Amino acid sequence: MDFSSFLTSLGTSLVIFLVLMCLFVWLSRKPGNNVVYYPNRILKGLDAHEGLSGVRNPFAWMREALSSTEEDVISMSGVDSAVYFVFLSTVLGILVLAGLVLLPILLPVAVTDHAVISDNTTSNGTFSDLDRLSMGHVEEKSPRLWAFVIATYWVSLVAYYLLWKAYKHVSDLRAAALMSPEVRAEQFTVLVRDIPPTPEGQSRKEQIDSYFKTIYPEAFYRSMVVTDNKEVNKIYEELEGCKKKLAHAEAVYAQSKQAGKPEGMRPTNRTGFLGLFGNKVDSIEYYTKKINELTPKLEAEQKVTLREKQQGSALVFFTSRVTAASAAVSLHARMVDTWTVMDAPEPRQLIWPNLPKNFYDRLIRQYVIYVIVFLTIVFFMIPIGLISAFTTLPNLRKLLPFLKAVVDQDVIKTVLEAYLPQIALIVFLALLPKFLLFLSKAEGIPSESHAIRAASGKYFYFIVLNVFIGVSVGGFIFSKIKTIEKDPSSIVDLLATSLPENATFFLTFVALKFFVGYGLELSRIVPLIIFHIKRKYLCKTEAELKEAWVPGDLGYGTRVPGDMLIVTIVFCYSVIAPIIIPFGVVYFGLGWLILRNQVLKVYVPSYESYGRMWPHIHTRILASLLLFQVTMLGYFGVKKFYYTPILIPLPIMSLIFAFICSKKFYRFFQATALEVACRELKEIPNMELVFRSFIPPSLSAGKSDDDQFEDALSQVSRTGSFV
Amino acid sequence: MDFSSFLTSLGTSLVIFLVLMCLFVWLSRKPGNNVVYYPNRILKGLDAHEGLSGVRNPFAWMREALSSTEEDVISMSGVDSAVYFVFLSTVLGILVLAGLVLLPILLPVAVTDHAVISDNTTSNGTFSDLDRLSMGHVEEKSPRLWAFVIATYWVSLVAYYLLWKAYKHVSDLRAAALMSPEVRAEQFTVLVRDIPPTPEGQSRKEQIDSYFKTIYPEAFYRSMVVTDNKEVNKIYEELEGCKKKLAHAEAVYAQSKQAGKPEGMRPTNRTGFLGLFGNKVDSIEYYTKKINELTPKLEAEQKVTLREKQQGSALVFFTSRVTAASAAVSLHARMVDTWTVMDAPEPRQLIWPNLPKNFYDRLIRQYVIYVIVFLTIVFFMIPIGLISAFTTLPNLRKLLPFLKAVVDQDVIKTVLEAYLPQIALIVFLALLPKFLLFLSKAEGIPSESHAIRAASGKYFYFIVLNVFIGVSVGGFIFSKIKTIEKDPSSIVDLLATSLPENATFFLTFVALKFFVGYGLELSRIVPLIIFHIKRKYLCKTEAELKEAWVPGDLGYGTRVPGDMLIVTIVFCYSVIAPIIIPFGVVYFGLGWLILRNQVLKVYVPSYESYGRMWPHIHTRILASLLLFQVTMLGYFGVKKFYYTPILIPLPIMSLIFAFICSKKFYRFFQATALEVACRELKEIPNMELVFRSFIPPSLSAGKSDDDQFEDALSQVSRTGSFV
Repeated sequence: MDFSSFLTSLGTSLVIFLVLMCLFVWLSRKPGNNVVYYPNRILKGLDAHEGLSGVRNPFAWMREALSSTEEDVISMSGVDSAVYFVFLSTVLGILVLAGLVLLPILLPVAVTDHAVISDNTTSNGTFSDLDRLSMGHVEEKSPRLWAFVIATYWVSLVAYYLLWKAYKHVSDLRAAALMSPEVRAEQFTVLVRDIPPTPEGQSRKEQIDSYFKTIYPEAFYRSMVVTDNKEVNKIYEELEGCKKKLAHAEAVYAQSKQAGKPEGMRPTNRTGFLGLFGNKVDSIEYYTKKINELTPKLEAEQKVTLREKQQGSALVFFTSRVTAASAAVSLHARMVDTWTVMDAPEPRQLIWPNLPKNFYDRLIRQYVIYVIVFLTIVFFMIPIGLISAFTTLPNLRKLLPFLKAVVDQDVIKTVLEAYLPQIALIVFLALLPKFLLFLSKAEGIPSESHAIRAASGKYFYFIVLNVFIGVSVGGFIFSKIKTIEKDPSSIVDLLATSLPENATFFLTFVALKFFVGYGLELSRIVPLIIFHIKRKYLCKTEAELKEAWVPGDLGYGTRVPGDMLIVTIVFCYSVIAPIIIPFGVVYFGLGWLILRNQVLKVYVPSYESYGRMWPHIHTRILASLLLFQVTMLGYFGVKKFYYTPILIPLPIMSLIFAFICSKKFYRFFQATALEVACRELKEIPNMELVFRSFIPPSLSAGKSDDDQFEDALSQVSRTGSFV
Repeated sequence: MDFSSFLTSLGTSLVIFLVLMCLFVWLSRKPGNNVVYYPNRILKGLDAHEGLSGVRNPFAWMREALSSTEEDVISMSGVDSAVYFVFLSTVLGILVLAGLVLLPILLPVAVTDHAVISDNTTSNGTFSDLDRLSMGHVEEKSPRLWAFVIATYWVSLVAYYLLWKAYKHVSDLRAAALMSPEVRAEQFTVLVRDIPPTPEGQSRKEQIDSYFKTIYPEAFYRSMVVTDNKEVNKIYEELEGCKKKLAHAEAVYAQSKQAGKPEGMRPTNRTGFLGLFGNKVDSIEYYTKKINELTPKLEAEQKVTLREKQQGSALVFFTSRVTAASAAVSLHARMVDTWTVMDAPEPRQLIWPNLPKNFYDRLIRQYVIYVIVFLTIVFFMIPIGLISAFTTLPNLRKLLPFLKAVVDQDVIKTVLEAYLPQIALIVFLALLPKFLLFLSKAEGIPSESHAIRAASGKYFYFIVLNVFIGVSVGGFIFSKIKTIEKDPSSIVDLLATSLPENATFFLTFVALKFFVGYGLELSRIVPLIIFHIKRKYLCKTEAELKEAWVPGDLGYGTRVPGDMLIVTIVFCYSVIAPIIIPFGVVYFGLGWLILRNQVLKVYVPSYESYGRMWPHIHTRILASLLLFQVTMLGYFGVKKFYYTPILIPLPIMSLIFAFICSKKFYRFFQATALEVACRELKEIPNMELVFRSFIPPSLSAGKSDDDQFEDALSQVSRTGSFV
């Protein structure tokens, strides 16, 4: 890619961004769009604009985002969102501090060197101005390389310092949230798995109750046996679907009455597959009949489920936070594979079908899935490599000669050259996260947030290995495959030599991601269009309308690995081609600004894990840093710099830093510290409410008395303090 | 070593053993020796022979050992000793079951093969009958090797089965001991370390009490701040020494009165270095004066210690076992490097100077010591290699020609050939354990039993790597050093080829160990002689006499690694030279019998860790098994057996077995399961006694009131249930 196509790409991206910005400012003023641009505020019961000054000012959203505090974020969107901003601002801080030193020092040092420009320091054989600004422009063995050594150290030290501060800060945020005087159901609950078979003459409930009552005679409240809800969920969903369709049909009927005919037109539907085949019936009658059929069926199934489908797993409730926190980490049974206890996640993020999974089942699943993920990561390298080899224009022309006429036109050529590889990459990557989340859930993880963390971790390794190393080493690797076979450690050298050649590719990639990506994010064009289509043609009832605009959550599962890829790219290039740093700063600065707006006004968190995401993020930032340090070691080697070993302490320091951080902070993110849990509560917790919040809707629906729970859900313990 | 010298060695060992046996039978009948042969019974307040039938019968001890039950062992010597017998009987079981199948099958298969006997299948170039019984006698690629493949599988499967049963059994023993209704001080106590600096205006005691009272308002009893007792210990020991010497002097004086002179002869001593220099003074006056001086000094120092030498560590007492067990594993502080809590060891095995060691201090010490141990293990290989190269007779003759005259005499030659290498080895190995125990204590481990486990683990690796691999590969390695440099994995082949050559060496080694080692063990010749010398010339008072015969404990720290070496040797040779199996059976059978006697009658356990030793033993038996399997893989390769890969599943199975065992059982050996701790107690625990048992003697001496404790040792909490 030459310099002009780089500028074209940058220019186009900027134009798209500006257009999307204008669209946002224009569209978000229309009150009809409030539900798209302010759904979080609306769901929280706030007025879309109330308290937000000057809707007239097109840049008001920026001021609001900048002036919002961390407490605002926590109160509007929870600790997890606040932690995400800690991540953004930490990376931003590292890049700004790195840039302040690196740009004024390294650029002049590189530009003024008079190295012989050999072919391998330029991209695709064409020399561009960008390459003059990079370390590739510095002569081999030159003493100027000392500046780059110092820069490597500077970036690392700044990263350590800010990461340490961030970890401490996140730990504070987590502690503050956990010690809040609010009663939170999950803080009184533990999840018990691998309960051994019931002894003769005891019900499951009695077994569990007597077990925990013996150990915690005072703090035990009651227990809830986990049941196999597959069948009851199916009926419940069918019933709910019918209720929605009935409401829809009634709304359509009412509408038709208003629209001219006073007797109205009764809506009809077909009973067969997808409503396309079968007999035509009157919808209102049909659904009413169906609801009447399903309701007793659901009740019967609820009873059967509670009585006969009990599994070897339970939720146990305690009257004290300290006991629950301490029980979650204690060893209860002598055989570690029975009565395993862990802290319960929030009711809304429990993955019920995973709860009764057996200890060894989980263990085996975990390893099988590690193998599958490993294979996926390794064998996806081949298609990515092919894509990056294909999607250079000369290749395309050679391989698909019929495209020649199109491709040779100057404008198309430039655009294609600028975007083709990136778009291929982005589309390709969009397919994966769902698959990884599916795999993570199949591991038997009991909570949604944990599954998302696990998926996100897998995605990170995938993305870094395949995109970054894959594209960098990409075409190169095939020609050098012999060298690697002989000496596997040469892959570091290979990475080091191929990095500078791909600098412009990644500059464009980062720019595309922030301009177009964040432009789309802010303007919410796609959800807006979908919402308006739905409102016009599909939604008849209030509930349907709400369903159409409910915004979903921030999507950490894919967002964090995506950001981490940028972190990796920018870290690795920060010294080799420091010109990438401003791009990184813009990415994370713009990201912070736009997502602040989105978090405060748009997205609704679907769970709260009190910042458990952070250790994952922290480890992965450090992994990027380590990759950067190892790459630099390799690259200084390629530059035949005599003092290269001076960089060896860096990776060791990173490992020690990671070790100390995990020793000092990590356990608090796995468990609740008792000094935090023992803070006083605002009120004596209503244990009945705590208990009820964990009953899945399919089991609680249609009943107000709890006679039916007596089999699987134990009664209030009479010895407890809450009689 | 040829066959005749092997038989000589065996014969001599047997004779020594028989002589020692007779000595034991003869000496143990004399009532004057009861304190040497029955000290454990005497200390337990039992009569030496009471309840033990027929002292007249010289083999009564065997019957008693055989008829004793596991409960006898536990009641006389604790769970740790019982676990040691589980180890012995498990290995014995494995070897018996292996021998029953291997001996009748493999020996005929090997003997009847008509392989060409090449030089490298014999020891030192001389062909012996023993070699015909080994796998080395089977032709390369022969289908007879199938029998050896099956044998390898049989040994492994038997080992898995018995190890699994043993782990379960030990887990039961541990549970039974921990759920005993006896009040055991350590079950109510946790050890708190890394307490952060005291906040302004609070004493250390207040800080600790308020911290734990907030978290455990009901179960917290009181706390004891750990102090720096170095100074007070020194004074206390001096005082105790003076008291002993005074008693001694008084006894001497009284004796001299009886012996003729009615006025007696007042004993004197010199005040200078070691009592050899300085002024001569009257002992009774001198020590009385010194005691009078030291007593107030001790009291003053006690006060100073309790008030001013408080450290950032404490023992915290709870009124409930469940709370203590649960607190020991719970996370208390947000920062994991502060307020670290663990279960307290027994008072007698607390290593006080290690308690206040800082979190990072411990961490760094641990890694530094790993490095030191690693270096020790690696660089001791050189001396061991030299010893084994030196101590063959031809070498001795060559290198030390002046020995030629002695060495060439037939008797001396045979004896030297038989014993020299083994004795060199045994002496050499005797030097190490103390050093390793010192290193383990320097890691900052808070309990004696844990330090011994750690030392024992280090010693195992040392012993296996150096003795077994060192001797096996020994001389060989120097000639082949080039091969290893080229291809490090060839060390397995090397081990495999050199193993059969050393079979007779190890046969002799095992025989020497059990005949001479266990003979000395049973007859207790050395302690007996020392005791009689001391009684005659040194001991004047009862206390001194008791000190002279107190037997010490079983010495797991060196005993277990020593046994493990035999396990490793026998496992590795079990298929290659099955003739070793009977030797192993005798070693562990005789060991079981003799140690059963020693444990019931002689040794007094110095601590109780409720079987925590077992996971270490288990892992190391598995490590030996793994070494055996890998060696067999290599040896079948050397035999050019076409189906060698059929053995590959074995090491994988071992790793999976180890993984599952550790998942299922291990955590219960690290922590007390709550279902065990919640068993009811015989009586309401007397918390004051529990608390007092942890006060070190140097601090509690000379005081009956506890005014002095009010600074470092908190008062009874008024909110608790023990006012």
